[in-house]
Amino acid sequence: MRTSQYLISTLKETPADAEIISHQLMMRAGMVRRLASGLYTWLPSGLRVLRKVEQIVREEMNKAGAIEVLMPVVQHAELWQESGRWDKMDAELLRFKDRHQRDFVLGPTHEEVITDLVRKEITSYKQLPINLYQIQTKFRDERRPRFGVMRAREFLMKDAYSFHLSQESLQQTYDAMYQAYCNIFTRLGLDFRPVLADTGAIGGSMSHEFHVLAASGEDAIVFSDGSDYAANIEKAEALAPTGARPAASQAKAEVATPDAKTIDQVSALLQVAAAQIAKTLIVRAHSDDEKAPVSFVALILRGDHELNEIKAEKHPLIASPLQFATEDEVKTVCGAAPGSVGPVGLSIPVIVDHSAAHLADFVCGANKDGFHLTGVNFDRDIQNYQSYDLRNVVEGDPSPCGNGTLVIRRGIEVGHIFQLGDRYSSAMKAGVLNEEGKHQIMTMGCYGVGVSRIVAAAIEQNHDEFGIKWPVAIAPFTVALVPMNMHKSVRIQEAAEALYSELTAAGFEVLFDDRKERPGVMFADMELLGVPFHIIVGERNLDEQKVELKNRLTGEKQLLELNQVQAVLKSLV
Amino acid sequence: MRTSQYLISTLKETPADAEIISHQLMMRAGMVRRLASGLYTWLPSGLRVLRKVEQIVREEMNKAGAIEVLMPVVQHAELWQESGRWDKMDAELLRFKDRHQRDFVLGPTHEEVITDLVRKEITSYKQLPINLYQIQTKFRDERRPRFGVMRAREFLMKDAYSFHLSQESLQQTYDAMYQAYCNIFTRLGLDFRPVLADTGAIGGSMSHEFHVLAASGEDAIVFSDGSDYAANIEKAEALAPTGARPAASQAKAEVATPDAKTIDQVSALLQVAAAQIAKTLIVRAHSDDEKAPVSFVALILRGDHELNEIKAEKHPLIASPLQFATEDEVKTVCGAAPGSVGPVGLSIPVIVDHSAAHLADFVCGANKDGFHLTGVNFDRDIQNYQSYDLRNVVEGDPSPCGNGTLVIRRGIEVGHIFQLGDRYSSAMKAGVLNEEGKHQIMTMGCYGVGVSRIVAAAIEQNHDEFGIKWPVAIAPFTVALVPMNMHKSVRIQEAAEALYSELTAAGFEVLFDDRKERPGVMFADMELLGVPFHIIVGERNLDEQKVELKNRLTGEKQLLELNQVQAVLKSLV
Repeated sequence: MRTSQYLISTLKETPADAEIISHQLMMRAGMVRRLASGLYTWLPSGLRVLRKVEQIVREEMNKAGAIEVLMPVVQHAELWQESGRWDKMDAELLRFKDRHQRDFVLGPTHEEVITDLVRKEITSYKQLPINLYQIQTKFRDERRPRFGVMRAREFLMKDAYSFHLSQESLQQTYDAMYQAYCNIFTRLGLDFRPVLADTGAIGGSMSHEFHVLAASGEDAIVFSDGSDYAANIEKAEALAPTGARPAASQAKAEVATPDAKTIDQVSALLQVAAAQIAKTLIVRAHSDDEKAPVSFVALILRGDHELNEIKAEKHPLIASPLQFATEDEVKTVCGAAPGSVGPVGLSIPVIVDHSAAHLADFVCGANKDGFHLTGVNFDRDIQNYQSYDLRNVVEGDPSPCGNGTLVIRRGIEVGHIFQLGDRYSSAMKAGVLNEEGKHQIMTMGCYGVGVSRIVAAAIEQNHDEFGIKWPVAIAPFTVALVPMNMHKSVRIQEAAEALYSELTAAGFEVLFDDRKERPGVMFADMELLGVPFHIIVGERNLDEQKVELKNRLTGEKQLLELNQVQAVLKSLV
Repeated sequence: MRTSQYLISTLKETPADAEIISHQLMMRAGMVRRLASGLYTWLPSGLRVLRKVEQIVREEMNKAGAIEVLMPVVQHAELWQESGRWDKMDAELLRFKDRHQRDFVLGPTHEEVITDLVRKEITSYKQLPINLYQIQTKFRDERRPRFGVMRAREFLMKDAYSFHLSQESLQQTYDAMYQAYCNIFTRLGLDFRPVLADTGAIGGSMSHEFHVLAASGEDAIVFSDGSDYAANIEKAEALAPTGARPAASQAKAEVATPDAKTIDQVSALLQVAAAQIAKTLIVRAHSDDEKAPVSFVALILRGDHELNEIKAEKHPLIASPLQFATEDEVKTVCGAAPGSVGPVGLSIPVIVDHSAAHLADFVCGANKDGFHLTGVNFDRDIQNYQSYDLRNVVEGDPSPCGNGTLVIRRGIEVGHIFQLGDRYSSAMKAGVLNEEGKHQIMTMGCYGVGVSRIVAAAIEQNHDEFGIKWPVAIAPFTVALVPMNMHKSVRIQEAAEALYSELTAAGFEVLFDDRKERPGVMFADMELLGVPFHIIVGERNLDEQKVELKNRLTGEKQLLELNQVQAVLKSLV
């Protein structure tokens, strides 16, 4: 491709609304342009990357035995009513009416459509298992779209859905998808980790996320340094401390703590480590009866630990989604404002994180404004409580697998696989005749890859101050051919044209910068665009029948004989 | 691909709602399934065809210098308000609100989005011309979706848009697109014709449609038997008869024609050829003043000719879109009901088709219920009228190019190219600095291909009573490998497996029917699916180390030595 016949839309300035590096670089390199909030046009270079990602995903899905279909973006409401998600999903599900005033949605996922298809097309156990996938545009009406294509409203996703008659069969396909995802991210050239994940709103019993590791990642992911254990922090279990709790040695005492409301303030005032202070959070209790009066639960954590909301929501006494009590509610329940609240003498259920439950002689709020208690001890001072895993793990915690200690890194979720069970197939009565000739509801798995998100994640992981450093497999072009001052030198022009013909014929994707621009402008554009290998044709080197090869990924430069170029590039790609 | 690991969803029965053969065969062959009105899921075999069509379109667009981008399906209303189409388009433009109550549309085309992009990215004449295209899902909320993917609401389209500073530059790109379209349809293996077309609602000055020829086509297209002239009947000019009009020889007379209202009835009653009877149609007149009282125009055609509404709408006196007067309005204007109306004595403008204007001594309604006039003559009996091209051409008309006579065939529109001019660029102020450093509005072309529609059109053109006969270039599989009773014969199984390995390794796309089905079921499915070449492995032929090759396209069968199969298939593909 010649730049003169292409659309290079690089920007010198970083757009003000681009908060993260991938968004900034995608704008500056002319990969995408914003049409409206959360809606992006893919410019030629961006689309080339997107299509390469898409093709690698497709090939690995096909290899793993999945079969490609294509379902409509627009779906009728009846299916969503049947599955129950029409009522359950919030405004993220974009609903609209057609010209006949019938209800439709823009598909955020396709569980309903595929389950409807399969219940009609698959009638016998002989046709199972089956794993159908598509690579299709999705729409989620995010409340606050941001980070460019990382969290757009319209995006490209690969979604696969498998159908089975047994858990064993589901597990087999799940394992095959796990392996296919590893193959995909390996081929993409990305540093990634599969981690155990919470199944969340989609439901189901087993789930892994695939994360591209990047310091800017939104998710905290947790590894063991002594095993393969890896999990999203949402999911990672915090083991209860081993050994017996220290014996109580202090008497309970009330101390005035005026103006000390946060853990840090109390710690400074009383000269007690945060780890020795109990943090008390009041949240709404779970209730099946909508008309019952609202009741509450107290959650107790060590002052240096953070509540894990996902874990808390799973406790049968706690409302899901988690709802914190208002300040007024806290005062009514505890007799004091948040900041002076503690577990002693509460009349509501008290749930204590395993680590907090191991404290002795600790500090907590006195349920009296401006006062804390010291020397507090479980059992002696607090009788009715239960111990539960309520907190996020921290670095240095023992791995829940039993081997090693935990390390925390940041990741960007680019893939997610689920064992769905019969969540959709039961609601939609999707079954087949089994070997005994009886109607049996199928069990399902679903497997997503954020195709457009991968493009942004790859940049978050691979960039420097000059721009993008694409992994070779997904670079928009493999080779940038940059002749210096070609329009003033026939010799340069001839050498560049000859190389362009040769390399193109050899199958390289070459971006030939034939613009009448200063060499500095061309170098900067090619670095910003992230083309992995640059061939620079200049007068001085040409005197010796040489050109310069610059490796964008390593920064290395070397001189090559003209007749070596193709062979050296082949060895690199 | 093994059928046992694939989704073959053939149907024995034709679905009741499938009116045309391509819809019937796409349903029966398991190419698509209906999700809701005008919304289709592409099953694996259908998607394979769709992707092949898409890839051929992409390759030829790239070859012609067009650059691929991808624009969002969802577009914000402001752009449509700026171009004026927000108000002009009817309910076919699907409008909706997002969670913040902002107006959006589902893109039926992307003129607004691309013009917005180009006015921001392209600032100098040096960057022109440029031709950007995408292959993207579109949505049109058709009042009555039908014919399966032929007229669906959601469909896949290739749309390209070019930008220029001069008509010469636009013409060059237009010509290149014309050639690219010829290449595309040739590579697809379809019998097609480019025809001159009306520019219609999109506007502009020059336009060609590309039609796949098929007896079931919705469009009538017109060729000269003596030249390259070809046009949509909407556009084809009917030349005025040459020579002088015959002189009047009869006196005007009023005859009672009770119950004779149609041309056929009058013709039978009066024993006069339809060609000698004038048909009078009353339509609304054009008015720029919305508050003015409605006025009317009379259109006169020969009884054997059909009104061409597109041509009529272009007449400055006639309202566009064309609106026929109601029965009451006709009575008020003419003093008689439709069926007894004629041009004599009318007080509204009279526009006479060129052929009708050549009549002498003709018959027409008397503007008196139950009566006609005979022996009517222009000038003598009707003074104020003008002659205009109002009718559809008919077979045998002279070609407007001057060479040959016209032949009419049926076609399915699968491509359309336009010279748009400045319709969008002016409204949206899309300009660049020209060579003189002055801001100049760009001129535009646009070029569409109905990718998903091509799949249906190909079937309309290529099928027989057993199913689809795919052109090799877009067949879902090239070779069907059909072993007979493989599950009872190790020898058959080994031979089939060996052929499958060999042909797959040689790059053939083979559908290996390894189901435990009767041979008849397998043959029928492969014929219905339209796989071009079938290799049938049976006991008797295998005794002689032979298999049967059946050519689905020609019906020919031949026996091949096992070691010949690959070479013979290569020669055929």
